[in-house]
Amino acid sequence: MKKIKLDISRATDMTNIMKYAKKVQDIHNKMESYESLGNEFLGWKDLPNNIDIHDIKKMELIANQLHQNKIEVLVVIGIGGSYLGVKAGIDFILGNLPTPQERKMEVIFAGESLSSTDLAQKLKYVENKKFAINVISKSGTTTEPAIAFRMFKKLLEDTIGKNNAKDYIIATTDANKGSLFQLANDNGYKKFVIPDNIGGRFSVLTPVGLFPFACVGLNIKKMISGAKLANEDYSIGSLEDNLAYQYAVTRFLLWKERGFVSEMIVAYEPNVNFFLEWWKQLFGESEGKLNKGLLPHSAIFSTDLHSLGQFIQEGSKVLFETVITVKKPIIDLEIVDDKDNLDNLNYLINRSVHEINNVAFQATLDAHSSIGQVPNIHIELPELNEESFGAIVMFFERAVSMSAYLLEVNPFNQPGVEVYKSNMFRIMKKPS
Amino acid sequence: MKKIKLDISRATDMTNIMKYAKKVQDIHNKMESYESLGNEFLGWKDLPNNIDIHDIKKMELIANQLHQNKIEVLVVIGIGGSYLGVKAGIDFILGNLPTPQERKMEVIFAGESLSSTDLAQKLKYVENKKFAINVISKSGTTTEPAIAFRMFKKLLEDTIGKNNAKDYIIATTDANKGSLFQLANDNGYKKFVIPDNIGGRFSVLTPVGLFPFACVGLNIKKMISGAKLANEDYSIGSLEDNLAYQYAVTRFLLWKERGFVSEMIVAYEPNVNFFLEWWKQLFGESEGKLNKGLLPHSAIFSTDLHSLGQFIQEGSKVLFETVITVKKPIIDLEIVDDKDNLDNLNYLINRSVHEINNVAFQATLDAHSSIGQVPNIHIELPELNEESFGAIVMFFERAVSMSAYLLEVNPFNQPGVEVYKSNMFRIMKKPS
Repeated sequence: MKKIKLDISRATDMTNIMKYAKKVQDIHNKMESYESLGNEFLGWKDLPNNIDIHDIKKMELIANQLHQNKIEVLVVIGIGGSYLGVKAGIDFILGNLPTPQERKMEVIFAGESLSSTDLAQKLKYVENKKFAINVISKSGTTTEPAIAFRMFKKLLEDTIGKNNAKDYIIATTDANKGSLFQLANDNGYKKFVIPDNIGGRFSVLTPVGLFPFACVGLNIKKMISGAKLANEDYSIGSLEDNLAYQYAVTRFLLWKERGFVSEMIVAYEPNVNFFLEWWKQLFGESEGKLNKGLLPHSAIFSTDLHSLGQFIQEGSKVLFETVITVKKPIIDLEIVDDKDNLDNLNYLINRSVHEINNVAFQATLDAHSSIGQVPNIHIELPELNEESFGAIVMFFERAVSMSAYLLEVNPFNQPGVEVYKSNMFRIMKKPS
Repeated sequence: MKKIKLDISRATDMTNIMKYAKKVQDIHNKMESYESLGNEFLGWKDLPNNIDIHDIKKMELIANQLHQNKIEVLVVIGIGGSYLGVKAGIDFILGNLPTPQERKMEVIFAGESLSSTDLAQKLKYVENKKFAINVISKSGTTTEPAIAFRMFKKLLEDTIGKNNAKDYIIATTDANKGSLFQLANDNGYKKFVIPDNIGGRFSVLTPVGLFPFACVGLNIKKMISGAKLANEDYSIGSLEDNLAYQYAVTRFLLWKERGFVSEMIVAYEPNVNFFLEWWKQLFGESEGKLNKGLLPHSAIFSTDLHSLGQFIQEGSKVLFETVITVKKPIIDLEIVDDKDNLDNLNYLINRSVHEINNVAFQATLDAHSSIGQVPNIHIELPELNEESFGAIVMFFERAVSMSAYLLEVNPFNQPGVEVYKSNMFRIMKKPS
């Protein structure tokens, strides 16, 4: 398998980051011996080695059953970590157009908002289609997915009867407790387990992501093997040899020593857009504590060069960029000849579109970093496939943990998310 | 028509912003007499009064012809200002699910990236569908849309023949010049005009947006009348009476006097997501010059409360929020009863989902602004319909112009965007 590449030369240099080698090694050792802050949530670290092949087979089996029963739409109900990674993985490989031929069924997402308009439009969308529900929630009582699940469940039961509906509802939840666990047991839904030692934003390679991935036809075994191989590289304590840690230290330096307040992660592939949303949760929730952390931002180039590009080039100098490019596109195209050449594109006819995309990357790298004085970190993925997805997930999960420990915050909690929730329950007079 | 409301009380107060009343009046007077910086691009200011009813009728006529000819997909080809506003307007009212029953045809977007994978997936998507093309470009030589147009044009011509294809290609371009203008003339495409005195990011209420809006079945007359009515309120020079200027001054104060570096615009309706992308271009490109301006950021709540929420609540204190809520949802839903109540939601059964969304807004407003010390500006839209869209577009176009003038930059140019482009042409050896 080709590996992920990292280039930090337009942000700092190795001499500079090696000042942190001992600190990184110390944090690493603490993580490896489960003595670090939040150590009860370090399960993601060894996940690719711990996945049970029987679970994989069960996921593939149920996905196939849905497919054979001609399910057109899988409604995935979840929020935050039970939503972002799932959509990130599907779009990463299949793109975000509705039902391209490659996927076995369409996936839509619900329970990630409280908009009645959005929920009603989604309920209407599946009304005359054969749909199944995968509800993902550790507790089953998070307001957004709980409301959506109640509504979609009712629609399904009203359409095909309660007894049939149970065969088209799959719950991904706690192994032993919680209201969704209870509901699934009482109604005979099929169940998958969210492990206790893995927090929401680190859960994409558990059944949270893997089951929907299997449903659209992705190869989840390859995804795990990609994660496993990459994980070997990111599980070593030597900063000199660990790219995930080098990335973590570089961004820490830019924050601490050079005063940048925001990291804009950028990709040149629209398919990666939602992966960047996943990344924003991963970094924002893991770091944003005790008035610390880089404000996570994202963009897709070249489209946003015609939007945020002006600000990056010439606006306030508050951000640096982390740019993701892809070595080998899923599909390449040649610029077609046109004898009229009224659009003046004929000078490109022996080039491929991917090559031109790479030129845009090179041109922008120079424009932003040299002329615009915006530091740049470059990450190159080998491909947009299952292996690469598994690998880049492990890269960032490892990096964010190191990064939060460098900031001296717990990477694995999110106490601030509770504030709006408890306010809400107070206003709505939720019975305790 | 109900009006847009603005609440700045959680960010500053009227006494504070009224310090700028004279400055605002002066800038306003200069704009009104076309003496301000970039005055050749002030056309947006009087646009709703200057739209020709014949143009509207022509757009509706051609849209109807496409509909009668059973066009399933309209491929809109454009980038930046020829893309963001179009998608913003459609999603605002119809949502972003593929082909809900309400719309006359599906719209997909191309030419907004250089990804070969993305372009190939989109070409494949329309391969067996009846599609038309609306190519939007002032010059016709911007690389991204020019490449996409060449590819989609070839596909269409290969499928139905060059002679038939011309009836399904509509060019929105310059009135008299440029390569797309020429191409359209030579091939007999139908044409719409992008006025000279309106820049890309201000062009959504010209045929750039209006024609695709007509194609999906939106009422463009209502959109214009909403813009026209709102524009009366935003065309007065008195800060005390002009909400758009009050918004501009409030955010300027937060930047200048209180040192905030980023504005996060937030909506509680997923349908508004792409409108926020449009807003990011509008503010980022208009302000981001001479090392000035607020970094534009966006989020959708409550979904991103489970992502960026932690950072906003407890992370670095670098941003303030501007929150858009909607008074009346397009559709509301009641929480359905469930006798088992395993999800503990029965305490909500006499409430509507929209009401709960409002509770989330109130709860978060308090959590972020009081507890998290994040200043908050609140904008309430009456509805998610054509009139509201027209009105909020005028609100922000007016506000961003004032805002850029307060920063002493030209709101209407984007010199930084040229840097990557000229680098690109150099690398690709474009003939001059």
